[in-house]
Amino acid sequence: MSVVNKFRYKITLEYLGVGFCGWQKQKDALSIQQVIEEAIYKFSKENVLVTAAGRTDAGVNAYGQVASFDLTIEHNPHNVMYSINYFCRPHKIGVTSCQLVDNKFNARFSAKHRYYVYKILNRRAPNIINAGLQCLVMDYLDVDLMTKGASYLIGKHDFTSFRATQCQSNSPIKTISNIEIIRNGDNIEIYVSAISFLHHMVRNIVGNLIYVGKGFWLPQKIKEVLDSKDRAKGAPTAPAEGLYFLKVDY
Amino acid sequence: MSVVNKFRYKITLEYLGVGFCGWQKQKDALSIQQVIEEAIYKFSKENVLVTAAGRTDAGVNAYGQVASFDLTIEHNPHNVMYSINYFCRPHKIGVTSCQLVDNKFNARFSAKHRYYVYKILNRRAPNIINAGLQCLVMDYLDVDLMTKGASYLIGKHDFTSFRATQCQSNSPIKTISNIEIIRNGDNIEIYVSAISFLHHMVRNIVGNLIYVGKGFWLPQKIKEVLDSKDRAKGAPTAPAEGLYFLKVDY
Repeated sequence: MSVVNKFRYKITLEYLGVGFCGWQKQKDALSIQQVIEEAIYKFSKENVLVTAAGRTDAGVNAYGQVASFDLTIEHNPHNVMYSINYFCRPHKIGVTSCQLVDNKFNARFSAKHRYYVYKILNRRAPNIINAGLQCLVMDYLDVDLMTKGASYLIGKHDFTSFRATQCQSNSPIKTISNIEIIRNGDNIEIYVSAISFLHHMVRNIVGNLIYVGKGFWLPQKIKEVLDSKDRAKGAPTAPAEGLYFLKVDY
Repeated sequence: MSVVNKFRYKITLEYLGVGFCGWQKQKDALSIQQVIEEAIYKFSKENVLVTAAGRTDAGVNAYGQVASFDLTIEHNPHNVMYSINYFCRPHKIGVTSCQLVDNKFNARFSAKHRYYVYKILNRRAPNIINAGLQCLVMDYLDVDLMTKGASYLIGKHDFTSFRATQCQSNSPIKTISNIEIIRNGDNIEIYVSAISFLHHMVRNIVGNLIYVGKGFWLPQKIKEVLDSKDRAKGAPTAPAEGLYFLKVDY
């Protein structure tokens, strides 16, 4: 029996989610994963399975998605980055760093902490420069009220009210480390971090906080929604275009 | 003789410069000014001349360009904003605020201070999410050296070395109030403010500072370039896509 050496590569990815069915490969739609696996094949002639830290949804973006895969040949990591970037074109997907890592590293299972940011433009006028890169909310959002509402979500809770009905996770129990909401002029950024998330969890949190920010709900309503363990009690899911997978701690 | 009442409107504009010949109307190319004047005509049926605080070049963007024009009818300023935005579509030009102002106000001649920001993405990997919205510089830029170089430009100087050869200004003497260079990860923003600027002045300043940041030049070389009063002694003009007209003080 021959032993095949494996070299494990860790890549950091930036992508625009628009037009993709999300991270994960699907039969009838184009995924980020498929574009990257095909790009890797084009330069290495190896069929690989690429594992990501966060399986982002359709339309969700990333600044710092992390993925890992194995090749039988030890390439210069810079060349791997350039080659994937070359073959990903013209898709809005790019590798921003690449390194050889220990075979025990797994982008998904080694991840200790995940960070998302949700970007809102809060004004009456249409979004021109960052159209498609932020969620436009025309009603004024009170960030102090949103921050108060968010405080009920920090810590370990049953997030049934904040998961998509199609969520496949075994347990709805998750631990949110922090939610920080920053206004800079008309721009609002909502930073959410946790060990891991449920399906649509960040977008549902943001959707609920937008209701608080608009004054539709008092901040305490967030605790009611959480305690109800019923997705139907919550506000609509915020659109995908404002969401960015920011980074991962290992 | 009949007296025609005039109502003066002040608008703040956001636009993406790509595909336009710049602010100013030209015979054979599409300008920001033309799109706005035509949009105003479409709702008001009045032919107006729109005056801007900064006549931005081809490809240069704006977050807070300010312009003024007169109409014979007093409209609700919110309706003026919505109407111009409606008729500017699908161009990447939008009005973000509108107010009725005193007839002595002139967007260009009343301006006391103009602010620009130049955005750089400083990394080896291609720009994915903000492609076209930042200038990509692959060589590492030392922001401390750039700040030192910039210090020679602050104050009142003869900026002949930093003006375009086709610049129509009577005098090359300008006063720069401040240059601030901020790095946030791979993103660099260069803020430049002055009462007014020469043609290509900000982009030439940035082009020269990039040479310093890359280590091609010592910071002191900026003073040499300034003193030479010779554009040919300077570095290449930085590309238009990174430049944003930020705001105006009145």
